[in-house]
Amino acid sequence: MNASPAAARPRTAELVVAAWQPDGPLLDVPAALVALDAAAAEAAGRDARLLVCPELTLTGYDIAPRAAALAEPAGGPMAQAVADIARRRALAIAWSWPERDGEQVHIAVELVDRDGTVLARHRKAHLYGPDEAAAYVPGDGAPAVGEIDGYRVGLLVCYDVEFPEQVRLVALAGADLLACPTALMTPYDAVSTLVVPTRAFENQMAIAYANRTGSEHRLTYPGLSCVVGPDGVDLARADDRPGLVVGTLTSAALDEARRANTHLVDRRPEIYAGLTR
Amino acid sequence: MNASPAAARPRTAELVVAAWQPDGPLLDVPAALVALDAAAAEAAGRDARLLVCPELTLTGYDIAPRAAALAEPAGGPMAQAVADIARRRALAIAWSWPERDGEQVHIAVELVDRDGTVLARHRKAHLYGPDEAAAYVPGDGAPAVGEIDGYRVGLLVCYDVEFPEQVRLVALAGADLLACPTALMTPYDAVSTLVVPTRAFENQMAIAYANRTGSEHRLTYPGLSCVVGPDGVDLARADDRPGLVVGTLTSAALDEARRANTHLVDRRPEIYAGLTR
Repeated sequence: MNASPAAARPRTAELVVAAWQPDGPLLDVPAALVALDAAAAEAAGRDARLLVCPELTLTGYDIAPRAAALAEPAGGPMAQAVADIARRRALAIAWSWPERDGEQVHIAVELVDRDGTVLARHRKAHLYGPDEAAAYVPGDGAPAVGEIDGYRVGLLVCYDVEFPEQVRLVALAGADLLACPTALMTPYDAVSTLVVPTRAFENQMAIAYANRTGSEHRLTYPGLSCVVGPDGVDLARADDRPGLVVGTLTSAALDEARRANTHLVDRRPEIYAGLTR
Repeated sequence: MNASPAAARPRTAELVVAAWQPDGPLLDVPAALVALDAAAAEAAGRDARLLVCPELTLTGYDIAPRAAALAEPAGGPMAQAVADIARRRALAIAWSWPERDGEQVHIAVELVDRDGTVLARHRKAHLYGPDEAAAYVPGDGAPAVGEIDGYRVGLLVCYDVEFPEQVRLVALAGADLLACPTALMTPYDAVSTLVVPTRAFENQMAIAYANRTGSEHRLTYPGLSCVVGPDGVDLARADDRPGLVVGTLTSAALDEARRANTHLVDRRPEIYAGLTR
């Protein structure tokens, strides 16, 4: 389900990336699909090539007790509906859903291109808290990377991005951009304002981090969706208002970040064995 | 040279930590010792239990061509002079020097307690740029941790802190506080303002990061020395003016950070093998 490590073609000069920050839970899948379609239309109108959506995009995040009932296999009805939107609005979409695989349920993210082709899938490898642990099975953390216009796009979900080990694995797989649906709660603003920019800086990789805003049951989301460049500097950042944030990643910025910083080259894998024990 | 993983005694309620940000190169060792003694006196007067100094504390940082000539073995004259200051001013000092070991020269950091006892030593494991690579041999990255008043204090140098793998190894060794002498240059302010707070947050570990300010030969240092709490929030931060910054780490703040964030528990070492290849 993942593209080969070598990029098939050179990057285009620019990749316009939108992060969708919906208001509230979107608890009803049909209504959420209408909202996603409107967001995709707006993103396409702003020349976005890729739209990144929050964690568990269409069901609401706070669904753990009902996750098994809501879960669908890869390629299920939700996936088909999102692929339809990608085709109709002519842009790629990174979205997330509760994935059924036999008896197991995962929190999955998928990158679907504007022709409806699925380019990569990832299952959240770092589950957050007892509710998630009770409802879901974690993924194996293997890097999932697809390619859009020559840009290699990696996928993670929410808490995964807080683990530098997991993000590094994606960067080592050659990702230019990490698309990360999330459900970041108050008061953990620092994950968006400190950790995500640091992950970009230390990996010379852009990051699009799409969160909810408003409230869902007992949870409150601070928004703060962002598109961060490969130098760790914001290209676009939301406050707590719902809507889209749109940033333009350039091929030149990737080249420049990799000239200015060489962490991927300078790391010393031979002394990191202690990380695996 | 490193304490056992289990803390020998409970932490005291507070540990006051000072970071010394000297102006310019301190190119002359005798003059630098006078300046260090004054900084130690001031830190002690502000109740600091530990003083953290910049990289290559007494020689100036930009010495690569002369490093072999300036280098001294562990326990050499510079070390004896610093231990004398620690005893006279009655506080622990984390300081850095060009360490000779046979034909090899390392960038070393050492934690010396207020009685002159050396509690831990580390050799910079991630060398920065061609000048360092030509002059020094990197260390093996094994965590170096000593204990002060029940607080486990880990040691790294400068570029080491930019590698989440290296910092994690120190945190996994049980460090409560990372002491990191540095020579951070302009325009890399983000290392101090983004990366260091992220390292603290993601490891539930305080960090004292001591930099120079002003200029040395062709180099310019932005200052920005800081003491960051285990929640990633600054306890004290310098701008570009020389002097001391003093922050108070509390045992309660460590406990609270480890209740609020559980990254060390939630990481998945079994899926990180790719980091070692």
